[in-house]
Amino acid sequence: MAPPSQLLNGAGATAGKSITSRMASVYSEVQNSRLDHPLALPSVFRSPFKIVDGPASSAAGNPDEIAKLFPSLFGQPSAILVPGESNESGSALKIGVVLSGGQAPGGHNVISGIFDYLQECCKGSTLYGFKGGPAGIMKGKYVVLTPDYIYPYRNQGGFDMICSGRDKIETPEQFKQAEDVAMKLDLDGLVVIGGDDSNTNACLLAEYFRSRKLKTRVIGCPKTIDGDLKCKEVPTSFGFDTACKIYSEQIGNVMIDARSTGKYYHFVRLMGRAASHITLECALQTHPNITLIGEEVASEKLTSKNVTNYIADVICKRECLGYNYGVILIPEGLIDFIPEVQQLISELNEILASGIVDESGKWKEKLIPQSLQLFEILPPAIQDQLMLERDPHGNVQVAKIETEKMLMQMVESELEKRKQVGQYACHFKGQSHFFGYEGRCGLPSNFDSSYCYALGYGAGALLQGGKSGLISSVGNLGAPVVEWTVGGTPLTSLMDVERRHGKFKPVIKKAMVELDGAPFKKFASLKEEWSLQNRYISPGPIQFVGAEADRANHTLLLELGIQGTLELMIRWLE
Amino acid sequence: MAPPSQLLNGAGATAGKSITSRMASVYSEVQNSRLDHPLALPSVFRSPFKIVDGPASSAAGNPDEIAKLFPSLFGQPSAILVPGESNESGSALKIGVVLSGGQAPGGHNVISGIFDYLQECCKGSTLYGFKGGPAGIMKGKYVVLTPDYIYPYRNQGGFDMICSGRDKIETPEQFKQAEDVAMKLDLDGLVVIGGDDSNTNACLLAEYFRSRKLKTRVIGCPKTIDGDLKCKEVPTSFGFDTACKIYSEQIGNVMIDARSTGKYYHFVRLMGRAASHITLECALQTHPNITLIGEEVASEKLTSKNVTNYIADVICKRECLGYNYGVILIPEGLIDFIPEVQQLISELNEILASGIVDESGKWKEKLIPQSLQLFEILPPAIQDQLMLERDPHGNVQVAKIETEKMLMQMVESELEKRKQVGQYACHFKGQSHFFGYEGRCGLPSNFDSSYCYALGYGAGALLQGGKSGLISSVGNLGAPVVEWTVGGTPLTSLMDVERRHGKFKPVIKKAMVELDGAPFKKFASLKEEWSLQNRYISPGPIQFVGAEADRANHTLLLELGIQGTLELMIRWLE
Repeated sequence: MAPPSQLLNGAGATAGKSITSRMASVYSEVQNSRLDHPLALPSVFRSPFKIVDGPASSAAGNPDEIAKLFPSLFGQPSAILVPGESNESGSALKIGVVLSGGQAPGGHNVISGIFDYLQECCKGSTLYGFKGGPAGIMKGKYVVLTPDYIYPYRNQGGFDMICSGRDKIETPEQFKQAEDVAMKLDLDGLVVIGGDDSNTNACLLAEYFRSRKLKTRVIGCPKTIDGDLKCKEVPTSFGFDTACKIYSEQIGNVMIDARSTGKYYHFVRLMGRAASHITLECALQTHPNITLIGEEVASEKLTSKNVTNYIADVICKRECLGYNYGVILIPEGLIDFIPEVQQLISELNEILASGIVDESGKWKEKLIPQSLQLFEILPPAIQDQLMLERDPHGNVQVAKIETEKMLMQMVESELEKRKQVGQYACHFKGQSHFFGYEGRCGLPSNFDSSYCYALGYGAGALLQGGKSGLISSVGNLGAPVVEWTVGGTPLTSLMDVERRHGKFKPVIKKAMVELDGAPFKKFASLKEEWSLQNRYISPGPIQFVGAEADRANHTLLLELGIQGTLELMIRWLE
Repeated sequence: MAPPSQLLNGAGATAGKSITSRMASVYSEVQNSRLDHPLALPSVFRSPFKIVDGPASSAAGNPDEIAKLFPSLFGQPSAILVPGESNESGSALKIGVVLSGGQAPGGHNVISGIFDYLQECCKGSTLYGFKGGPAGIMKGKYVVLTPDYIYPYRNQGGFDMICSGRDKIETPEQFKQAEDVAMKLDLDGLVVIGGDDSNTNACLLAEYFRSRKLKTRVIGCPKTIDGDLKCKEVPTSFGFDTACKIYSEQIGNVMIDARSTGKYYHFVRLMGRAASHITLECALQTHPNITLIGEEVASEKLTSKNVTNYIADVICKRECLGYNYGVILIPEGLIDFIPEVQQLISELNEILASGIVDESGKWKEKLIPQSLQLFEILPPAIQDQLMLERDPHGNVQVAKIETEKMLMQMVESELEKRKQVGQYACHFKGQSHFFGYEGRCGLPSNFDSSYCYALGYGAGALLQGGKSGLISSVGNLGAPVVEWTVGGTPLTSLMDVERRHGKFKPVIKKAMVELDGAPFKKFASLKEEWSLQNRYISPGPIQFVGAEADRANHTLLLELGIQGTLELMIRWLE
């Protein structure tokens, strides 16, 4: 084998240091054992297959506007891989791949899936890995991926094979840069691995390339631990499964600790800014006493006082049952769902931008009474976070607000009041936790490993079949891998428009927790029981071997109508 | 089988709700699979064995004073189990067991080890589980443990089988209460599972019972995730292995995230108040860029400014290498090792106790210049923690100070200064983490499962052999379980005295990180390399099956002189 530097092409070699870091890296035994973990493939790939069209598609909303924005792509049908002889030649292709946005476990397997497909079905192909996200496309920074280059990343977490970035290809100049690079590399196709924004961007690029008569096709892949990029044909985004299992391991441990110690309420904030899928899934896996779902809070128009009272009520009821401990799950984005908090933040942004904040507190007179009242009941540390942690535009950084501490202290104050009027007799003790970064880059679960590999393999097939503007879609995920279906869904069919600065912008709408969906309904039917009785489950660390290792998450299985996994193994002594 | 309530004796039934919670609990597949995990036993238990004496013992310090405090127990020899016919009868025993102090993974296995020993070797015996820690002994609150009662807790985390507590048996009245309960239950023996304090207490109880001519013997078991209860014959405390592996999984994930994102320095605070063993072990498992070891900081008399500068120096050097990210491990107890911080805290305690803190800040004039300077450079949130978070005695709660945030902000300020003079050109971004509670109650690793079971089995044998005042000691831990040695070490041999209120008090000295010990020396020899190059290892989630599942932690193996496990599997592409 060649030494690492020779594995890089010219452009790559200049910034090869970070790219080759894994190669010189030290592997744990578990990481090592994962390298050769065998991955099954959907059976359609076992024999000759062809791509057939589904029905024509429309848009998620405002189809007329979407049609105007995507004149070449709008309305194209879904693609489905089925057994049969294809007309496609197996000639060599030149394909690029890019990782876009935040990390999610499994990204490396998408890349190895594309690579293996090309090796298997289009011999002589070249796979370019664009480095550092979409900026790598615009700047033409890439590495030529080889078997040796890819091997150390198989079934491994992280995005460090080619790294990621948050740049967008937006301006006409940037589209032109991408075009120049695509032409220079003679790209037949490009796979964009990303979330809702990145896939919107992928579709715009697909439209642009087609309008410019470039041969370069663009295929998206659904990535985000938040689980909010999904539709009928794309049952889940990759990374969600692993991240939720990692958080649930930690939550399960904290539950056992809570029960053993018997004196703490643990307030656990979980990553997942927009939708509360992660929190809901972790609740289904672990059965906490209280779970706040942002979409439910918004739907019921709850104030922070309502939320505080709800928690305090459960704590008081549990006191009567002899339980002075518990576990409470809080989605990172909770405060985005509480209108009065949003109102306060927007007033603070204006006050801080326009004037001086005097130490004596006279500035507070500018707040409307509701906002002032809310500000005054916030704990000092949270007040500090609101006043001091500003982004470069001077705005409050909502993601930095430690919502779990805020709620914990508001609950403590409420219980103190109740104590004084004899409604509560215990001594409340809270512990706060934030489980976030440690879930984004874990070793992918068996499910995510296989799912990503199939997504990549499918993306390769779609590109070979001449498809563009589709998102790789792998279905029938409740069945064993060999029975999974493979195809592509028109990105335009996921889109709606938003009006920004007087113009329509296409957006893939985030899939929020649906209050009439099976996962939430399951949770809603059990939450009362969980709140008062202790039905804690501790999922333990992710196992890679054994019967339980291949099981997917509850959200996915419930959405697919597969209930069996939630049937509970109650171990009564009998 | 009988329903749960009938499994409890009279005293237990009244508070049976929490005790029986596991029985009505829901188990995850992994928890379930652990229930029947087979545990090997040291070979000495495979055939008849007897207890032989080692040499007479002394004390860790001040043997004359220890001899006065423990007239019946001082000087007794270690006990060693060896093959051979014993004179002991296998008659039924009445034994009590208690969990004392904070949780550590494996406690349930100590209890099941004692139980199985009694079932196997002393048929007809009764095992009483005292509930809620030493208070359960004093109040006579217990449950009679049965096979059905114990089964759901086998190889499970937590202490909830009988729960724990932090009470101590200290006053003459409390010793008398314990005596009354021991006599009422006709106890032949008592096993105290706890840390340094609890084992000191166990020894005082053993001495008291012996002086009162009670037949009740007392045996201790070494428990603490902190890893600071150990000596030559007790190579490690249980729970340390599992907790470090759980933290290392999280740290490894954060490392992959850091490398993939390429823009954050992660400041990770780890549980472990007194000694820095956990932080050191996690460093050996994961190879972070910077690891602060409290004992090293104290030995080199570093100030917080020194520590800040050291971190900033490494960050600047890494900038030159093109790395603007990294991972930094910080032991929870760090500030206890920095004299100037201790000084500030003690001054604050006095000021807050004696006077009024005016809003204008005039109170600060009471601080000595060094303390004032330190206070002023602390971030506002940390100042708040110092001023607002007080314990019931009005003292600063050191454990609540978020040292990782404090350091992060001090490093940020330092780098800002360097930027202004052109010594640093990057934009520093920090992320803080605290990994604590989620490590105390995880499913015990295979090592902790087996080690605890052997400790319990051995404790049973020592009690049957009439021993008292020993701590169960299982040795040769680098070898397969069948080759482990089993015995007991005189608790008095671990003791020294401290003078408190004019009296000598016996204490088991905490085992701190030894700067000339093998684990620290290994770390010290590599820390420079780790700081500048990225040698990250991601251990991944604890596996229960497979070659890697039985491996013990680095600290233990290095202290035993077994280096092999640290030989690195560098996966160069060759």
